[in-house]
Amino acid sequence: MSAGTGGLVIPLWADLTAVGLGGVQGALFASGFRGQRRLDLLGVVVIGILIGMGGGLIRDLLLGVAPVTLHSDWYLITAVASSLAGMLLARPLQRLNAVIVGLDAVVIGLFGAFGTSKALVLGLPLVPAVFVGAVAAVGGGVLRDVIMGLPVAVMHVGSLYAVAAAGGSAVLAALHAFGVALPVAAVVGLVVTSVVRLLAVVFDLSLPEQRNLHRRRVAVETGAIPVVRR
Amino acid sequence: MSAGTGGLVIPLWADLTAVGLGGVQGALFASGFRGQRRLDLLGVVVIGILIGMGGGLIRDLLLGVAPVTLHSDWYLITAVASSLAGMLLARPLQRLNAVIVGLDAVVIGLFGAFGTSKALVLGLPLVPAVFVGAVAAVGGGVLRDVIMGLPVAVMHVGSLYAVAAAGGSAVLAALHAFGVALPVAAVVGLVVTSVVRLLAVVFDLSLPEQRNLHRRRVAVETGAIPVVRR
Amino acid sequence: MSAGTGGLVIPLWADLTAVGLGGVQGALFASGFRGQRRLDLLGVVVIGILIGMGGGLIRDLLLGVAPVTLHSDWYLITAVASSLAGMLLARPLQRLNAVIVGLDAVVIGLFGAFGTSKALVLGLPLVPAVFVGAVAAVGGGVLRDVIMGLPVAVMHVGSLYAVAAAGGSAVLAALHAFGVALPVAAVVGLVVTSVVRLLAVVFDLSLPEQRNLHRRRVAVETGAIPVVRR
Repeated sequence: MSAGTGGLVIPLWADLTAVGLGGVQGALFASGFRGQRRLDLLGVVVIGILIGMGGGLIRDLLLGVAPVTLHSDWYLITAVASSLAGMLLARPLQRLNAVIVGLDAVVIGLFGAFGTSKALVLGLPLVPAVFVGAVAAVGGGVLRDVIMGLPVAVMHVGSLYAVAAAGGSAVLAALHAFGVALPVAAVVGLVVTSVVRLLAVVFDLSLPEQRNLHRRRVAVETGAIPVVRR
Repeated sequence: MSAGTGGLVIPLWADLTAVGLGGVQGALFASGFRGQRRLDLLGVVVIGILIGMGGGLIRDLLLGVAPVTLHSDWYLITAVASSLAGMLLARPLQRLNAVIVGLDAVVIGLFGAFGTSKALVLGLPLVPAVFVGAVAAVGGGVLRDVIMGLPVAVMHVGSLYAVAAAGGSAVLAALHAFGVALPVAAVVGLVVTSVVRLLAVVFDLSLPEQRNLHRRRVAVETGAIPVVRR
Repeated sequence: MSAGTGGLVIPLWADLTAVGLGGVQGALFASGFRGQRRLDLLGVVVIGILIGMGGGLIRDLLLGVAPVTLHSDWYLITAVASSLAGMLLARPLQRLNAVIVGLDAVVIGLFGAFGTSKALVLGLPLVPAVFVGAVAAVGGGVLRDVIMGLPVAVMHVGSLYAVAAAGGSAVLAALHAFGVALPVAAVVGLVVTSVVRLLAVVFDLSLPEQRNLHRRRVAVETGAIPVVRR
């Protein structure tokens, strides 16, 4: 069973795994807000849907194909169910910042790998294919920040967020160009993105100018404090 | 005369009615801001266009079809003319909060019904069709809030806004699934969304967590006070 | 060599010129921010890509065609290289407000002319074709403001920004309707938009309600001071 357009073979189970993990991560993130920014049930589900499905929607818009996530009931059912699960898990997992960060790394890795793979299958050149993967990886988070009125994390704060996504996508595209089978290249790209992202968090790496903002970033990620938009 | 793609039959007059009412509502809303947020003539017209045409644009992007609102001169002419009319009406209607809320309920009902209908006609499954209707209904308002720098109403404040849109869309899709003719189902869905939305405002209903924000919402809707983004 | 879809003839060199100038302008703008809003290298490049490619992406989404900027490696390479060049030029050019304003006028003129031309070639009616041109001209700036958390310049502050774009697009479409060859009409439209925009800045023209905000606008454009979102 394939979730692709025009011959792409991303297995539906893999696609739904990404949506489900994204939904859990989005709901965990959104549930962490307190005070005036606190979201109600609907708001948490909306963020879960944005993180679970936003990357795929943006990818398909950039590729000029009809969004595959809307051609099966399963994507939305998975996104909503996983958001509700994430909300229920939010209280016990609240202090486990590692869970949110880890899920986030896997999710951007998955969306980056799927985005680049689909772009390559549709015949895009290397550079735009990497771009589509990177945008698909971070796009859901950008939508989340804009709709929640938060500073857009990719722009102001770092831990090499978008660089991890672009790097994994570039490795994927390069392997593919050298003849490696796409599923293998996709797994390698996914691992590269997730590992770079995790190492960046663990070792507190950042681009110049990002360092002094890092503390704020961690606080946003954990949802421990609301970020004031100034 | 049909405004649809691929055999859809939304009569052009119905589509333009939605655009026109949306334009008036958007301009009434935008004209209400005072002080630093006060918009000039162009800004009010932009908001009128966003509310009048934004829902249809988002719907068509999600469906992967060329935006129908850009394939006839009448949509933009209607949106701009109704925005100007809304601006002229803003002063006499300023205090008639009921007009803005009532128009809003009808507009989200119309865009929800059209969105779900078009999705079903294009062959989308039930769940995504309801999703497209709900997003088409609230999408124009989300764009308005983002571009005006307001907190996104659907996320932070409530009166069951998106729930009304999703509910009406779900009723429409269910009736269609049980064999009811689409125009009939669409009218029922429109009525359900509008009535749920109006009842929510009248009886001050809200999801948990929304109650303490309600006062702020009403102020935003009437445009009586500018909302500070914090 | 053509960068168009379905027979459109925008020469690739012209398209890449617009992308390159947009990239330089975006990076100059983004590099000007100081203090808490200061962007790192990645952030500046993202803004350069948004200004260089955002208008074309929005145009193609509105037209319902696959984004042409992603079907060649050259667009992204040009956008990234020109962003880096803009960043290097930012310090020496910092005080040359005229450079940023002048580049901006040319860039919106180019995107407006290309947007309207492509819409007309694809068979859109006059009014939507003008709309697509205007949105393509200002769209990149709107994305920039939203992602940077700035007030959206087109809405709150003026110097006839969008009016210049719509005016040039309208002249282009009118000339085309009267039988003038599209390349000639496009050059005239480009010149009209750029000149109106420059005259508006030079003579401090604005729509009613914009005057008292003008000082703020100039400060944003030069990046001399960060704008506080309140």
